[in-house]
Amino acid sequence: MIKELREKTGAGFLDCKKALEENKNDLEKAIVYLREKGLAAAQKKQGRVVNEGRVHSYIHANGKIGVLVEVNCETDFVAKTDEFRDFAHNIAMQIAAAYPRYVTKEEVSAEDLEKEKQVYRRQAEESGKRGPVVEKIIEGKLNKFYEEACLLDQRYVKDPELSIGSLLKQMIAKLGENISIRRFVRFQLGETAKAE
Amino acid sequence: MIKELREKTGAGFLDCKKALEENKNDLEKAIVYLREKGLAAAQKKQGRVVNEGRVHSYIHANGKIGVLVEVNCETDFVAKTDEFRDFAHNIAMQIAAAYPRYVTKEEVSAEDLEKEKQVYRRQAEESGKRGPVVEKIIEGKLNKFYEEACLLDQRYVKDPELSIGSLLKQMIAKLGENISIRRFVRFQLGETAKAE
Repeated sequence: MIKELREKTGAGFLDCKKALEENKNDLEKAIVYLREKGLAAAQKKQGRVVNEGRVHSYIHANGKIGVLVEVNCETDFVAKTDEFRDFAHNIAMQIAAAYPRYVTKEEVSAEDLEKEKQVYRRQAEESGKRGPVVEKIIEGKLNKFYEEACLLDQRYVKDPELSIGSLLKQMIAKLGENISIRRFVRFQLGETAKAE
Repeated sequence: MIKELREKTGAGFLDCKKALEENKNDLEKAIVYLREKGLAAAQKKQGRVVNEGRVHSYIHANGKIGVLVEVNCETDFVAKTDEFRDFAHNIAMQIAAAYPRYVTKEEVSAEDLEKEKQVYRRQAEESGKRGPVVEKIIEGKLNKFYEEACLLDQRYVKDPELSIGSLLKQMIAKLGENISIRRFVRFQLGETAKAE
């Protein structure tokens, strides 16, 4: 049973043993228990410095789309694990498929943000809305904009229940190191504008 | 003999036949003849529109360096040839190894150019040079800067006799289509600044 739990969660032997004890050998509960503990630890780890990692690429549709992404972690040891490599690969595929323009909300420039807001404001006002309703609409549309444009706010294409931000936290919990998606580019063949 | 010439130059049957006739079956001379003809044709082709091609990536040193490059040509047919793919690969490797910052001289901004010039001017003046000699020194150093920073002016790492610009012209002559290196990025793990 401990073995099964380890396979399902990637947690250590002692953690799995304890999780089963605390949850009276209920496997499902033990998984939830480990996830919550792991995610809490992940939150703490997200402050740590990350200088290792890897640059990963993904070429899609016979060379029509290409992605380059840098994913960082704390040690070269973790950078070389299959899990980390797979994570970098999944992130690169996500970028190819879902076309984010930023990694995080914080990267959206004040200027771009203002432009988006103005568009939403005009749309709302043209449809006859006034006052606080307009602000509510802007807020809703802005959240949608973040979900489209910011990688960490996007739904994971392989599992839309998860955001990329949650997927990242799971990886931090699983690998026990802070991990960060540092930067990416996405080239699409024949795009008119230069990428970013 | 025509077969050998075709293999060596990639030129068509009739061109090879003519090249051998015009050069009295001297294989070496026929190769030079075809190259010159091809390169002259290449010059003409460099005006044509390129919307096809491929996005190619190259990951170096176990994920420590990554390159993404877009190389364009005129037709999807050429984009799918092994020669074109190999060319894109060699360019990506060049970028990984030689770290260019621009594709062409023209991409160097007026601001960056002015900064470079000022550094060279100060260096020359500090070493006691004055007047037209200073301008000569600046010109020389600027050419060196272009050879380091601009992909098309760089020496080809696999064959330092060639510049990347000449390699490009050879590919245009060989594949019979205009080809252009449109853009690239190079990520190095843990670089302090964002690329470009």
